[in-house]
Amino acid sequence: MTEPLLVQKYGGTSLATAARIRRAARRVAGARATGQRLVVVVSAMGETTDRLLRLATQIHRQPPARELDALLATGEAVTAPLLALALETEGVPAVSLTGLQAGIRTGPHHRRARIVDVAPRRIVAELEAGRVVVVAGFQGVVADTLDTTTLGRGGSDTTAVALAAALQAVRCEIYTDVRGVYTADPRVEPRARLLREIGYEEMLELAAVGAAVMHPRAVEIGAAHNVPIWVRSSFHPRDRGTLICREPKLETRQKVRGIAHQAAVAKVTVVRVPDRPGIAAAIFTPLAEAGVNVDTIVQNVSHEGLTDVSFTVSLSDIDAVEALLPAVVARVGAVGFVADRNIAKVSIVGTGVLGTPGVAARMFQALADAGINIEMIATSEIRITATIPAGAVETAVRALHQAYRLERL
Amino acid sequence: MTEPLLVQKYGGTSLATAARIRRAARRVAGARATGQRLVVVVSAMGETTDRLLRLATQIHRQPPARELDALLATGEAVTAPLLALALETEGVPAVSLTGLQAGIRTGPHHRRARIVDVAPRRIVAELEAGRVVVVAGFQGVVADTLDTTTLGRGGSDTTAVALAAALQAVRCEIYTDVRGVYTADPRVEPRARLLREIGYEEMLELAAVGAAVMHPRAVEIGAAHNVPIWVRSSFHPRDRGTLICREPKLETRQKVRGIAHQAAVAKVTVVRVPDRPGIAAAIFTPLAEAGVNVDTIVQNVSHEGLTDVSFTVSLSDIDAVEALLPAVVARVGAVGFVADRNIAKVSIVGTGVLGTPGVAARMFQALADAGINIEMIATSEIRITATIPAGAVETAVRALHQAYRLERL
Repeated sequence: MTEPLLVQKYGGTSLATAARIRRAARRVAGARATGQRLVVVVSAMGETTDRLLRLATQIHRQPPARELDALLATGEAVTAPLLALALETEGVPAVSLTGLQAGIRTGPHHRRARIVDVAPRRIVAELEAGRVVVVAGFQGVVADTLDTTTLGRGGSDTTAVALAAALQAVRCEIYTDVRGVYTADPRVEPRARLLREIGYEEMLELAAVGAAVMHPRAVEIGAAHNVPIWVRSSFHPRDRGTLICREPKLETRQKVRGIAHQAAVAKVTVVRVPDRPGIAAAIFTPLAEAGVNVDTIVQNVSHEGLTDVSFTVSLSDIDAVEALLPAVVARVGAVGFVADRNIAKVSIVGTGVLGTPGVAARMFQALADAGINIEMIATSEIRITATIPAGAVETAVRALHQAYRLERL
Repeated sequence: MTEPLLVQKYGGTSLATAARIRRAARRVAGARATGQRLVVVVSAMGETTDRLLRLATQIHRQPPARELDALLATGEAVTAPLLALALETEGVPAVSLTGLQAGIRTGPHHRRARIVDVAPRRIVAELEAGRVVVVAGFQGVVADTLDTTTLGRGGSDTTAVALAAALQAVRCEIYTDVRGVYTADPRVEPRARLLREIGYEEMLELAAVGAAVMHPRAVEIGAAHNVPIWVRSSFHPRDRGTLICREPKLETRQKVRGIAHQAAVAKVTVVRVPDRPGIAAAIFTPLAEAGVNVDTIVQNVSHEGLTDVSFTVSLSDIDAVEALLPAVVARVGAVGFVADRNIAKVSIVGTGVLGTPGVAARMFQALADAGINIEMIATSEIRITATIPAGAVETAVRALHQAYRLERL
């Protein structure tokens, strides 16, 4: 019988120095010694990606994406052979592969390419030869041009889960600088509890509203191929971490699993827009074309054929929005627009949140009791997000954590 | 009519900082503005290769060559997109290519791979699209595995000349941190004169015996495909540099063109070897298998069926030789061996040196007049090399430079 196959991923902090690379190698060697086959995905060392970005922007104010991808992909291409060398030092036969050599094929969109296909022929051959395969994360290749692409921030997670799916690994282990997924950000709520397990959908919603543990695209691939993803700390090897997997025991579970928050948010209201078909498209198409990611959208009830349209954007996008909106306002015949830069969002996430009586009401009551005004509300199947004043965000996280008694097991 | 095609190569010193990369870009832009198509080959920035080597040896005492190649090739893969960005900043459309994307195919020998083939389809397409093509030097790919190889120290020169040959460029320009090829090392002989022109064979002999201006493999490829190679200083753009090309006007030329020297040499003598067929092979095969490059070999006249075999090696190889020789001595039935670490070589190089009466005699006389003892002599068609005590090497260079009046035009 073949040995079970494991995919491990090590983040940049875990590989920032020669000493840390050797430590990661010892962990890989330990797993190999227990009779598992291993594919190890690596990020760039420490601050390498930021250093390369700085170098590029010293030379070109807005570096074209293709060249930036060619440049940034070198970071992981350095770490992979270094880890392979460290494994050889531990007596473990190892080989490093670039994204291209590993068969990671992506679409043609640079800086945030999506993996379209994994052709792991070389990986399989190296595993059969008894080697640990170290793969440079975050990068892929466009099949017909052989141009290098990158998968966006956190893209090495995506590489790892995609390889685990393609190779039918038993598990994908993500070694990172946090201990796992918490019921809330432990820097805000000291009583936040580490979750032993969380469902893919819940993890996606948490990631979408600010919990930065895992790249959402990686969780999506894990969900689609049912790859168990184990998030663990590189620095606390005895910790149990969090297992992201299919929601177990749906009915008997506690409904709210975690509180997420986002601080740097801006809210924009387009005031007194004539309420007719096509208005939403007229407002949001120019923003989408400018690459602005629009979040929560709320359209208030129409009075006398006029309506207010509000939405949130990341604070880093608000300057672009303010530059675009005057033309939009004129075109749709609105009165004007108002931007508020002091906004935050707080969310409760958990399977069946919306379907369970009283869960939403408890959220609104807890925020009201804490004296926090809710500006907008948005919901998904398993998430309720409230837009609140930026100054109230930490109070809100703690109030909600207590309201759902998340500090208890 | 298509515009003439030029290949330029910039060394690591010329690209060590963002400011120098921008300066190189301005030079490329200047050449582009005169209506030439351009392929630009780049080395790694400054000390990058040494930094990566240090990192590797911190992690593995003797890093396997395949992983080392994967690691070292990232240096050039950083510079190429940065120069492409700098060209875009200058308003010049540009694209960067790795060795793989540029179609540089090599043999499977890591660390010192030889280019076997150039498949420049992508380069041609990018040139046709009006772009300057920036190619990462020093690297290639093994066609069937897609493994990255490197071409050895100075390998970017080889990339540049091989591309110039494959693309039938009018010329290959090597921008470096020296002003060109001198009649002797100007740090040793201040009266050394820059050569306007030198033949491929002469350049090869000079490179083989210590003149480090050009990688010998690059000169070989240039000679085989008749690519004019123009060596110029990045820092003194008005300098005329040296053109390496087919020997012009053979008969009327001065015979000795330059003096080269090598300092860090060791000499080994295997003492009183039974003089029978197969002895040379028995001595040198084990050394070759250990990767030791044996230089000048002299076998003295045999007395009573016994002979002394002497040879020189690079000082960095002498420890390996001393470890291997006791077994060899025992096998061939010699008395023992002697190693001398304080050896240097000095050479005169020029077309027809051996065929011209008096040239060799003048060399030996000049060294004798300077009180320098010659230990071994070796010759090629266009070179005479004398092995001398290490301490005498600078005196020897100056004595020979004067003997052949090389300070005169």
